[in-house]
Parts: sequence; structure tokens; C-alpha cells
Amino acid sequence: MAKHTANRSMGTVALRWQGDSLELLDQRLLPAEEHWIKAEGASGVAQCITDMVVRGAPAIGISAAYGVALAARHAGAGDWRAEVHKAIDELAQSRPTAVNLFWALERMKGVFERCESLAEATRQLAAEAVHIHEEDLAANLAMADHALEVMAPEKAMSVLTHCNTGALATGGYGTALGVIRRLHEEKLLSRVYADETRPWLQGSRLTAWELTRDNIPVTLNADGAAAAIMASGKVKWVVVGADRITANGDVANKIGTYNLAVLARHHKVGFMVVAPSSTVDMALASGQDIPIEERDGTEVREIRGIPLAPAGVEVFNPVFDVTPASLIDAIVTEKGAVRNPNITGMRALFA
Amino acid sequence: MAKHTANRSMGTVALRWQGDSLELLDQRLLPAEEHWIKAEGASGVAQCITDMVVRGAPAIGISAAYGVALAARHAGAGDWRAEVHKAIDELAQSRPTAVNLFWALERMKGVFERCESLAEATRQLAAEAVHIHEEDLAANLAMADHALEVMAPEKAMSVLTHCNTGALATGGYGTALGVIRRLHEEKLLSRVYADETRPWLQGSRLTAWELTRDNIPVTLNADGAAAAIMASGKVKWVVVGADRITANGDVANKIGTYNLAVLARHHKVGFMVVAPSSTVDMALASGQDIPIEERDGTEVREIRGIPLAPAGVEVFNPVFDVTPASLIDAIVTEKGAVRNPNITGMRALFA
Repeated sequence: MAKHTANRSMGTVALRWQGDSLELLDQRLLPAEEHWIKAEGASGVAQCITDMVVRGAPAIGISAAYGVALAARHAGAGDWRAEVHKAIDELAQSRPTAVNLFWALERMKGVFERCESLAEATRQLAAEAVHIHEEDLAANLAMADHALEVMAPEKAMSVLTHCNTGALATGGYGTALGVIRRLHEEKLLSRVYADETRPWLQGSRLTAWELTRDNIPVTLNADGAAAAIMASGKVKWVVVGADRITANGDVANKIGTYNLAVLARHHKVGFMVVAPSSTVDMALASGQDIPIEERDGTEVREIRGIPLAPAGVEVFNPVFDVTPASLIDAIVTEKGAVRNPNITGMRALFA
Repeated sequence: MAKHTANRSMGTVALRWQGDSLELLDQRLLPAEEHWIKAEGASGVAQCITDMVVRGAPAIGISAAYGVALAARHAGAGDWRAEVHKAIDELAQSRPTAVNLFWALERMKGVFERCESLAEATRQLAAEAVHIHEEDLAANLAMADHALEVMAPEKAMSVLTHCNTGALATGGYGTALGVIRRLHEEKLLSRVYADETRPWLQGSRLTAWELTRDNIPVTLNADGAAAAIMASGKVKWVVVGADRITANGDVANKIGTYNLAVLARHHKVGFMVVAPSSTVDMALASGQDIPIEERDGTEVREIRGIPLAPAGVEVFNPVFDVTPASLIDAIVTEKGAVRNPNITGMRALFA
């Protein structure tokens, strides 16, 4: 387990479990507004996931787990089993790519199926969701340990990241951003270059905001500036999260991640993926099998209702891309790191 | 010279010479608003260039030429030579990277220095600016011819472009977008993928708008989606413009161009730079010598005054990057194409 846990900042909390509701920091409104939304039932949680009130693969999984707990709490005494199963199905429909969602729902379903009464289910499911939440935070701290072993920096260096993988995207601390936090704690971080991450701007709206609050030095850049930053020799590592990792080590992550992997290899910059083992999907052979969500073109055509493009122009808006394992130097999970990932290395850790 | 000039659409006009003023379509407001600004003197033109009312390397050069013509027209009978020279100096300060600006000013200066009276200068400078404008349009048509010879497409294909290199960026028709127009005219274009081109959104605001008006099929994408598009096999060529090309064939162009060049090489997609010979700067040995403009971080932190990032967060906002010649398959100018550019090939055409 990680050192110095007691004195460490875990970052800004993005979800609060209140027993009878889940409160979510509305990530659509950041950084302009800090507004909390109360998701009162499983349907409310599913809608918050679909609408990206909460986002980030681990945070989606944790939220879904709480959603199942809420379903039991709100179920009628009659056909409560069917009600909870229906809620699980509804939550499973909320977003398609991040496997942490399905992993969390499977785990909740396993607990649920062992329960013999609604009262027991209500108690056990709430406890399990809290476990999933706490384990995610602990996993993030462990990943940071493993990542620093892989990086083995001899002196302070700068890194580049994409999207948001921080406390806002997880149960706390963060995956890739957790590694960056740890580098900062250990005085091994010069600066983070944060891709703004179009179209949803997770980099500017969330990552720059989180890092600024925690006094971690950050420079924001347009996604298109990443190659120029690498060519200048300014960064040693690109560190990103993941939404699904397949058995051969391919990684689905926020659109633009694959660009960075190609650029990192070209510039001999390290490329590290940091994600909990709940992101690993050994049932899929390769990244080609991952369902890639496409969202509405409005995300590209408009910002806050202001048109940025001709009305109705066709948009290609995939939310994720797939980085082949061959471009990845290390996949880091709480179970350890897989260097130069391939099916053998993945099986050794995740069989 | 190009075929079928008479029946060909030259695209949306972005600048109108009125003899005593230069009218510019305000490209900061597109596509929401079509507003024309009257730049009444050389200072007004310089300000419009700095503020990006007019942008695109060739259009900047043309505008600056008209600015010099206006300086002569407005000069007092006394020290008119000094006044015009001062205007040329002021225009030269308006932006640093696109060499077309300095090329146009040098050409105007050459004409000016041969004039023996203010009346002659007023007449000759206006005529020269019109020549520069008309030559640019003709050059674009010729470039499209040369580009199609290099591409030699056997059937309709899709291409990807970055920034805006169309009629709005030039004297008409466009450089890279002119090539795309020609492909469309010849029924050799399936679709254009247009990078939105952060931070200034030339792709969504200008390119998608131009192409939509001319019924050329366009799909808009976030810059980060380019690698996924290439990996899918959807595009055969990346076609971009240039702001300065050095003696060894290195190319400065809109930030994000270098990313595309690396990605294109990785995916075995062709990478073509299309620019008039006024963009070539044989006085600079390599791209390392090109001054790269950095603009205010507000362009990344805000859109139309709406904050997208924490106030005051540090931003790295270079306007251009440098693509090394080794990643370029062809540089196409009105004088012909340089394939696999290097100093020998460049000298053969531009010595």
C-alpha cells in the first residue's frame, strides 16, 4: 500500500454517497460553476452517466454501483428482485465503452444474487458499493507506486496528459493524474502539459481546474500543440487513463489518445496507460472488438449553445479511439505494471 | 493555366478593394455573422491583420499590399516617401510567421522606389496590389493542376485538411482547399474531413462554412480524431497549406499540422503541402529559423468570453508548428511540385 496516505491530498471529491441518494458534482458546468446534483434512484444515476454529469471510467463504475444500491433501497416489497435486475439493465445501457461500468454491475449482481431478503440486499449492496469506491481510491494510490517504479525518474521532469483522469474521474486521487500527483509529492514533477481535449474539454475544464486547486504546475495546450511540445523535448512521458483494455494490451481511451501514442513513439517519449484492473477486459481479444461510443455532433458544432460551425454540418464525433499495445510502453494497474504489453504479459497479471 | 476557369466557382470572397479602402469580411465572427470591416488606411489594415479580421498567409500578403497602396493614397504632398516607408514598416510588424506578408511588402517597396511622384506611386502601388491579388488567384488554379498530377487519383477518394486554406485565406479558390475544390470538380472527391483546428476553429468556422456553401461534402471532426480517421482507412491524403517554407523544404503551418504529418506517415497516408511560391523563403536554411508566433492564452481559455478553463491558468499557445521536409510527400506551388522535398529539389524550383 502507498506511503504517507494520511498526509496526502486525494483531490477534489466528485461523488458523495448519502445512503438514500448519490450526490454528483455536475462536471458539465465546471469550472464556471460548482453545482451538485442529487440522483435519487438508479434511473437518476443512469441518466447522470449518460449525460456526463459524472464521467471517467472508474467514477462511472462507482456511480453505477451506488445506483444498484439505490434500486434495492427503493424497491417495493413485492417483486424486488425483478426491480433490482431491471435497474442493473438500465444502468448497463447508460454508456457503452468503459468496461468498469459492466464490471461494477457484475460485482453488484453477484452480491445481490446471494441475498435472501430485500433488507439484506439493501444493506449488502450499499456496503458493496462503498467497498468498490474505497478500493478504487486504494488502487489509485497503488498504481502511483508502480508507475514511479516504471518511470524511475532521476530528477524532476515534465509530462503530458490527455482528458481528465483525476479525483473527478475516479474514487479519488486519480489514475494517470494520480501518478502525476505522486510525482509532484515526490518533487519529481516540473510541469504537466494538459491537452484541452476536444470536444468535451475535460483537460481545460477539469484537469487544469483540479491541478490548479492542488497547486500542481500546469500548462494548458490545444490538442494540436502536442507534437510541437514533444519535438521541443519538454516532456519525458505521456500519461493517460483507459476506458477498456483488451487481452492483447490494446487500450480504448478518450479520442486523441491514439494520436499521442503515435507522436510519443515518433519522438521517443514514453507512453504509459494507468487504470485499475477493473478496466481490463480479458474477454475481448483486441481493441477492434471494443464498442466505440459516438456522441451527437452538437458537442463539436457548439459550445454552450454558441454555434462554432455551420448549422447541421456533418460531424464525426467518436468519444474514444483505440491505441494498439505496440505503441504502449507500460500499462500500470494496482496489480502491477505490464511493460511492452502483449497477450503473454497481460495474461501473467490478469488471467 | 487551368482549364474551365470561366465556369469555376472561386469560392467566397474575403477581401474587396474599393480604391480608397479595403473591405474585409470579419473572419472572427464567422459563421454566425457576415460582417464587413472597412480598413481605411495602412494602419487599419495592419490592425486587421494583427487582430485576425483577415488571416491565411496569402490573404495577409494581399491585404498588406493594399495597405501600402492606401498609404500612398493618403500620404501628404510633403514627406510622402517617409510616410509610405513608415506604413510598410508598420504592416511588417502586424504578424511574424507568414512570409507572404514580407514578400508582398518587398514587392510593393520595389515598385514604390521606382516611382518619381506621389501621383505615380498612388497609381502604381494600387495596380501592383491588384496584380498580387490576381496572381494569387491564378497561382491557386495552377497549384490545383499540379496537385492532381501528383495525386493521380484513379477514383474518388476522401482527404483530410487542417485550418482554412480556401477562398477566405487567399485571393480566391484556395491553396489546399483549392486542390480539394478541383478534386470535387473532377468528381474525384468523396468527402473532406475537416479538423476543427483549435484554438481559433478555422476548420469549423471557416472551412466547413466555405465547403457547405459550395456543396462540397464535408465532415467536421475534433483534431484529436484525425488518427482514428486515418487508422480506419478513410483518407488517402492529408492536404494542408503553409505559412513559410524554408530552403530545405521544412514547412511552418497552423499548429497541429506537424501532428498530422507524423500520423500520416505512420498510417501510410499521403501528406501534401500546397502554397504559392510567395510562401517559400529560400533565405532561411531550415524550419528552426522560422519565428513562431505565440498568441494570448485567452484563445484557449475562453470562447466568446465564456470561460473554458480556470481563470489565469498558464497556456502554451503557439500559432504554428514546423513539419520537417522528411515527413512531406510533396510541396506544390504554382511553379510545380517538389516531391520528397529537400534542399536540392527546392533549389531546382526556387533558386
